[in-house]
Amino acid sequence: MNIVTNPLKLQEISTRLKKDQVTIGFVPTMGYLHEGHRALLKAARDQNDIVIMSVFVNPLQFGPNEDLDSYPRDFEHDKQIAIEEGVDYLFHPSVEEMYPVPMSVRVKVERRTNCLCGRSRPGHFDGVATVLTKLFHLVQPTNVYFGKKDAQQVAVVHGLLEEFHFPINLVAINTVREEDGLAKSSRNIRLTPKERDEAGILYKSLSLARIELIKGNVNLAELKKTVIASIENESSGKVDYFEILTYPQLETVNELTGTIIIAIAVQFGKARLIDNIIFELDNTSR
Amino acid sequence: MNIVTNPLKLQEISTRLKKDQVTIGFVPTMGYLHEGHRALLKAARDQNDIVIMSVFVNPLQFGPNEDLDSYPRDFEHDKQIAIEEGVDYLFHPSVEEMYPVPMSVRVKVERRTNCLCGRSRPGHFDGVATVLTKLFHLVQPTNVYFGKKDAQQVAVVHGLLEEFHFPINLVAINTVREEDGLAKSSRNIRLTPKERDEAGILYKSLSLARIELIKGNVNLAELKKTVIASIENESSGKVDYFEILTYPQLETVNELTGTIIIAIAVQFGKARLIDNIIFELDNTSR
Repeated sequence: MNIVTNPLKLQEISTRLKKDQVTIGFVPTMGYLHEGHRALLKAARDQNDIVIMSVFVNPLQFGPNEDLDSYPRDFEHDKQIAIEEGVDYLFHPSVEEMYPVPMSVRVKVERRTNCLCGRSRPGHFDGVATVLTKLFHLVQPTNVYFGKKDAQQVAVVHGLLEEFHFPINLVAINTVREEDGLAKSSRNIRLTPKERDEAGILYKSLSLARIELIKGNVNLAELKKTVIASIENESSGKVDYFEILTYPQLETVNELTGTIIIAIAVQFGKARLIDNIIFELDNTSR
Repeated sequence: MNIVTNPLKLQEISTRLKKDQVTIGFVPTMGYLHEGHRALLKAARDQNDIVIMSVFVNPLQFGPNEDLDSYPRDFEHDKQIAIEEGVDYLFHPSVEEMYPVPMSVRVKVERRTNCLCGRSRPGHFDGVATVLTKLFHLVQPTNVYFGKKDAQQVAVVHGLLEEFHFPINLVAINTVREEDGLAKSSRNIRLTPKERDEAGILYKSLSLARIELIKGNVNLAELKKTVIASIENESSGKVDYFEILTYPQLETVNELTGTIIIAIAVQFGKARLIDNIIFELDNTSR
């Protein structure tokens, strides 16, 4: 495996690979890799000639009240996972290499952000879209891999790729779950044993709400209220949001048809857990 | 010559060309082509295997008080020039094809805009940078051509390409001038014969100011005042701005060294004329 730190050096490599008509799978990460990242890397390895992974904690997507410095880092461990998953090039630039001068341009995300986790993180997705624009030009991937667990990020990237006509294919990978349905996350270790027992309720609630929507004839406001009440009655979790939106537009659902996301965030003691399911509603079949 | 109106069709063509390792020269325009555009097309023709020109009046770069509808258009004439200059593909999409859905992302230009012509056109360069980002991904050019007459636009594009790491080479083409130095422009026909006689003063003033800067030991504020006064004394023109800035950063000049732009805008009756010169100042030689 090759480790590259210089952005233009990476672009030289990807330009050469493109000339050789090689397919490139790209997995952009902020490091501190877990099982979810492995699923992205396995898919990339499976579907491309060459796999490039980036590990870069992007200051631009941290708000003034979010602690960039305390973001967990473990590059040696990330490197080990990259080797195990067959990564060809690991891109690990410094902040100075990625942002050598004050930026005169940035990508502004004007839709799909004022809901779900974006509502409490103004500017976050501008930072994500800006660094991805840079990375996409450096890596020149055929396919780029994101996890559906961060469904709002996938929606924003979907808009970025489509509206700016990036010649890149977006691959969204299913969330990896524990046996009781809990989405795997590095935050799960912050749960107490009791909270861990309760946490399966996120996915259970999403699944039940999905069935109600498929059955149709449902009042969305009522449904939300019922789900939130049942979670807060049956567990120690506090629901931050429970939303039913169109996907990937993330707009209010007016008709029960098309692609829908049900997304949830619940605070359990020291761990804020998020999860979602995305599915098609076909109202002609009802 | 091929005329293409569908954006994804154009991208298919450019992807195929790239696979064949063909160099692509791209000249983005808003149509109503004049001699300045011909200079760009000739350079593109000279330096690339394939030349692609776009003709698209981009609504995104017009302010609410700027009349998009009355922007001059003459596609038949543009097509004729394209054929004469050896364009291979002429891209002429409709607004609906370029903006089929409300955009969720756009490029925001945060520096280099609050001066020169940008000062009176808030949001203009956001629109320019956004449509160029789209076009660059559709055309996938090796080289892209702009005229130095729109020096601020070149500066913004320079930042866009460099900071977003577009794998595209920027070629800035010298301004085409009349014998008395007046920059060629479709606006020159709005000058009365008397104004036309006077209008050579823009380039003369720029050249004189340049000599003062090269001699060094000059007070910039004084120099600006003197130049503005002499233009307004010797002609019927009203100076909108006369600025001396670093290039391409377009920031205040603190030291007389590095790349400098002197730029001017003068209103003559119905015609607002702009011009500039960009040059190196090497303070070690003085």
